[in-house]
Parts: sequence; C-alpha cells; structure tokens
Amino acid sequence: MTHKFDVLGIGNAIVDILVNVEDDFLAAHKIPRGSMQLVDEETSDKLYDQLGTAIECSGGSAANTIAGLASLGSNAAYIGKIKDDQLGHVFAHDIASLGIAFTTEKDNSGVSTARCLVMVSPDAERTMCTYLGACVNLTEDDIDPDMVAASAVTYMEGYLWDPEKAKAAFRKAMTLAHNAGRKTSLTLSDSFCVDRHKQEFRHLAEHEIDILFANEEELLMLYDTRDISVALKAVQQHCEVAAVTRGAKGCTIVSADEIIDINGYPVSDLVDTTGAGDLFAAGFLHGYSRGEDLKNCGRIGNLVASEIITHMGARPNVDLKQYLADNL
Amino acid sequence: MTHKFDVLGIGNAIVDILVNVEDDFLAAHKIPRGSMQLVDEETSDKLYDQLGTAIECSGGSAANTIAGLASLGSNAAYIGKIKDDQLGHVFAHDIASLGIAFTTEKDNSGVSTARCLVMVSPDAERTMCTYLGACVNLTEDDIDPDMVAASAVTYMEGYLWDPEKAKAAFRKAMTLAHNAGRKTSLTLSDSFCVDRHKQEFRHLAEHEIDILFANEEELLMLYDTRDISVALKAVQQHCEVAAVTRGAKGCTIVSADEIIDINGYPVSDLVDTTGAGDLFAAGFLHGYSRGEDLKNCGRIGNLVASEIITHMGARPNVDLKQYLADNL
Repeated sequence: MTHKFDVLGIGNAIVDILVNVEDDFLAAHKIPRGSMQLVDEETSDKLYDQLGTAIECSGGSAANTIAGLASLGSNAAYIGKIKDDQLGHVFAHDIASLGIAFTTEKDNSGVSTARCLVMVSPDAERTMCTYLGACVNLTEDDIDPDMVAASAVTYMEGYLWDPEKAKAAFRKAMTLAHNAGRKTSLTLSDSFCVDRHKQEFRHLAEHEIDILFANEEELLMLYDTRDISVALKAVQQHCEVAAVTRGAKGCTIVSADEIIDINGYPVSDLVDTTGAGDLFAAGFLHGYSRGEDLKNCGRIGNLVASEIITHMGARPNVDLKQYLADNL
Repeated sequence: MTHKFDVLGIGNAIVDILVNVEDDFLAAHKIPRGSMQLVDEETSDKLYDQLGTAIECSGGSAANTIAGLASLGSNAAYIGKIKDDQLGHVFAHDIASLGIAFTTEKDNSGVSTARCLVMVSPDAERTMCTYLGACVNLTEDDIDPDMVAASAVTYMEGYLWDPEKAKAAFRKAMTLAHNAGRKTSLTLSDSFCVDRHKQEFRHLAEHEIDILFANEEELLMLYDTRDISVALKAVQQHCEVAAVTRGAKGCTIVSADEIIDINGYPVSDLVDTTGAGDLFAAGFLHGYSRGEDLKNCGRIGNLVASEIITHMGARPNVDLKQYLADNL
C-alpha cells in the first residue's frame, strides 16, 4: 500500500523559551525537576519575569519528532493549532522550512500561540512549564481525513490528552488511521502526564496503539509497578511494538517475539536534554518507515537523540540525513 | 562626580532571528557577506521564508553591549523603541532580566518590533538583514535627560543614524551628556553604515564623540584610506579614545599619548561571530568605568568578545562577572 507521508504528527504546537536555571530556583517554586506541568498564562508570565535571558525556538513534542523525521529525509506532515501571531509565525516558519505539510487553520483571535518555559539545569536536565494557549482549540475538525489516510503512521503525543477537545481529535485520527489500514503511534510524553491519564492511556495501549514510545519512568507509571521487566512484559501483550528509552543507557525495543536492549551513543558534551525522547522517536520511525529491522530502528533513534542533547533546543542543529550517513 | 549608571546605551531595539546558511545563499541573493543591510518588512518576510529552522534571541548592537555590561556587574540603562507585541516582550524581558533600567515607552500600534535576520556562515561569519520596524519611532522625546545626566558614559550605535528621527534623539543625548560633564561614545557599527553616513560620522568623531569604537574596515572607510596607520593617526587627532577591533588579532587602543596593540584571546570553538564587537565594547567600557588603564580595558574587551563567539547569539551564555574572574 503506497503512502504520501511516512509519518503524520499530531500535537501541541508550542514555541519553547529556553533558559538556564539553578536547581534552587525549581525547588523554591516547588516545580519537580524533569517534569512538564501545565500553567495558566498568568503563572507562565510570572515565572518568565523571574527567569534570566532566554532564547526562543520552535518546540512541541510531536512537532520536534516530525522536524527530526523531515531532516532525516522522511516525508512528514503535522497537525497542530497556532494563533496568527508572532510566535505562531515562528512555529509555522520552522515547520515549513523543513518541507513539512502543515495546513491546520490558524486562530485569528483568542488566546495566543502556546509557549513552554524550558528551564535547563546545570546537568542538562530540563523542566518545563507549558501554557497551552491556542493548542486547546485543536478539534476534530482539524483532523484532515485524507492526510491521515495518506500517512503510513499517525504519531500522537500524550500531552495532547490534556486539552479536552484535542482528545476527540486524537480519537478521530486513530479511527481514521486504522480504517485506512495504517499504523497508530503514541508517545506517553511524561510520567506526570501518564499519572493524569493512566486508565485511558492503558486502554489506548491495549486497543488503539500499534507503536508505543515511553521512557522507563513513564512505562512504570503506566503499569503501576517499580519492576521494569513486569512493565516490559505488560506492554508486550498490548502493543505491536514498544520503544522504551533509558537515558544514557540507550533503549529497549519490545515486540511480540523479543525484547532487545540497544546501547546509547556516548555523548561528551551534554548541554540540554530537551527533545531527546522526541528525536529518538524521529530516528526510530524513520527506520521503521524504511523497513529497517527493530534493532536498527533503535540504533537510529539512539544516534539521533545523541545529536539533540549537545545543544540548546529540541530541533536539530544539523542536517540529520548527513549526520546519519556520517555516524551510523 | 558620582553617577547612577556606568553606561547608558541608546540603540535599535531588535530581536535576532539566527539561522545557519551556506555562502551560496548569500551570493544568490546578492547580499554582501559580513554586512548589515536594511530591508523592508516584505523583503524580510520573503527572505525568512527561504531560510531554514531558526532560533530567536534578543539583539540590537547597543542593547547587546548593555547586556554585556550588566552581566559584568556594571550599572546600565537602555533607551530603544519596541512595540507592545510578542517580540517586544521577548526583548523587554531579556533586558529586565539583567537588571537594566529600560523605561522607553512602547508603541501600542503601528509597525512591529524590529527583527534582524542573522545568517551565520559555516565559518561563523554573520550577515544581517534588518527590518527596523518600531525602532524608527524613537524620537527626541524618548531621551530622558535625567537618565543621560546620571550616566558616566552615553553609548550610541551608528546604526541609529539610519532612522531620521532617531538621529535627532542621538544629537539631543550627546548635548545633554556633555552639558552634564559626561562622556559620549559611538560605535561605527558596520562599514556599509559608515559609507552611508561618512561625512556626518567624521564630524561626530571630530566634535561630539569622546570614545569611538570601530573595527578596522569601518575606520578605513571613515577616513577613506586603505592604510590603517593613516586611519589610526587621524582618529588620534579627533577622539579622546578609540578602540579598534581587529578580529582574531585582538584590538588596537588609541589615545592622545599612545597606540597600543593588544592580542586577542585564542578561541578553539568558533560558532557565530554575532555580537563580537558589541561585547568587546561591553568589556572595554566596563574596565573604563572602573578606572582601569586603557590596556586593561582592551584586554577585558578581548576576553568578553571571546565568550560570545563560542555560541549562537549575541547575548552572553554565562555570568560574565564570573567569566572575567575565572579567565582574566
């Protein structure tokens, strides 16, 4: 079955505001290190006022993955909601610059384009406070059935389960994908996010999702266990493929037949872990859509993740196609 | 004579859009490598559409210098015009986050906050296309006489000579500074800028400016010569102090008594030369306002410039006070 897009991403369209912080700052504001939490505009503004000099770049978990896929040479599409404002233009530019199909209608009024305060600790761990803004206006109407049917994989971020209307969009996309004989994929996004939506995510894993992405913490949270082998066996019953990232150690790939550990690439100059999981998914899905075996998919994921953590921001600094050719 | 601010900067308040380019792109668009040129909004947008994934950070030549001074521990103030829009908020945040006094009234309507497309070549040279936007609305009324009188040095960028009304603001500030017994300082900004305003800049150097900043090309352009020793002798007749940057070679400091060459700091990981001149001026003026001798001022300037070119963007990535303590 031919397809126009290797992967369609659906997610929160967000501009990241990156700033270095000391861990004391997080502790003083009772923000769990490494978490992503949702904040309202007022809280976002108050926090921003107390933070230092920042840089801005396009973000959003699924959007980062799609940007990575495009940079690797995959055909990619994206659905997400921005407002027609300056930050929205920044987001749309960065998506378009990579040749990604992005036709979601922009909001002309109402709340502004989403922004995420990404606070980077001295050890490169990132902690995020997200103001969802226009993202919450993504609805079923924004899911283009032709686009979903034309995509080999429809990839969604767990974060999208937070805005109520987006959830319906998500369900519509999954149904459309399966009706067209395509694959669905989900990233669990964040262990706090899993905690908020545990029952629904478990149901999705069992019934709706073919390819699941998670890190160890998220998978443990999903299956309410502290034993990773229990969690791996559980997900093996539910999904066709699960790709579990394990930080510097690499990843574990789970399929009906096997559970494979794949070592991570050594990184000497760790700067900012923002986007590591997103870019792992990009590498994995790039290999997957090219028919690589699962082990190779995991290796590509690890390699691509190793690039993103050597600089600030969650979008690749280099042409990943070339990077892959030079380093794999 | 006591002062509240070591340095007041007056300049174009700009948000930078940084993007990597190949030199072919510049050639195809007939943009001189290393130049800054002014473009209208339509041209800026058209160019942006053709460029790759970007990051955004606060910029503006004098604003970069003032940010550097604040990071070094100087008391600093800034005057420049933004609009009350998202990019304006980014600019204001980054200035405020460093404790810089910035009270210029924002535009509520009209053209948007200025932006500069900074195209970074593989060898780290930067080429800029600036849409001045709200900057052109800076007028005499924005020059706060108390702020000028309270500043030991009023530092202005040559770029500000482009918007007609800002020129009047500039003249008012120079008069106020001298009436209060303070020093005036100017950076020539860019050799193309010097070419546009050569006679006026020469007049300023002769009659209005105490401390002049320039790179070699700009100084040669100012005095219509290809012989740097001729240019250095000319500026020695005109300004109390001239600080001339010479790229990797370092700088030459000119005063009535002497012309001193000071070697640059070796930099192994050159990434982006944006802001090198601006941050040299920050280091120099920081030393100057603390009564350091001119040679030491030049050394501090060289050191601070060596930090900014190791990463994307023209604002310091580290606390420069600490950086100075660790490296000088």
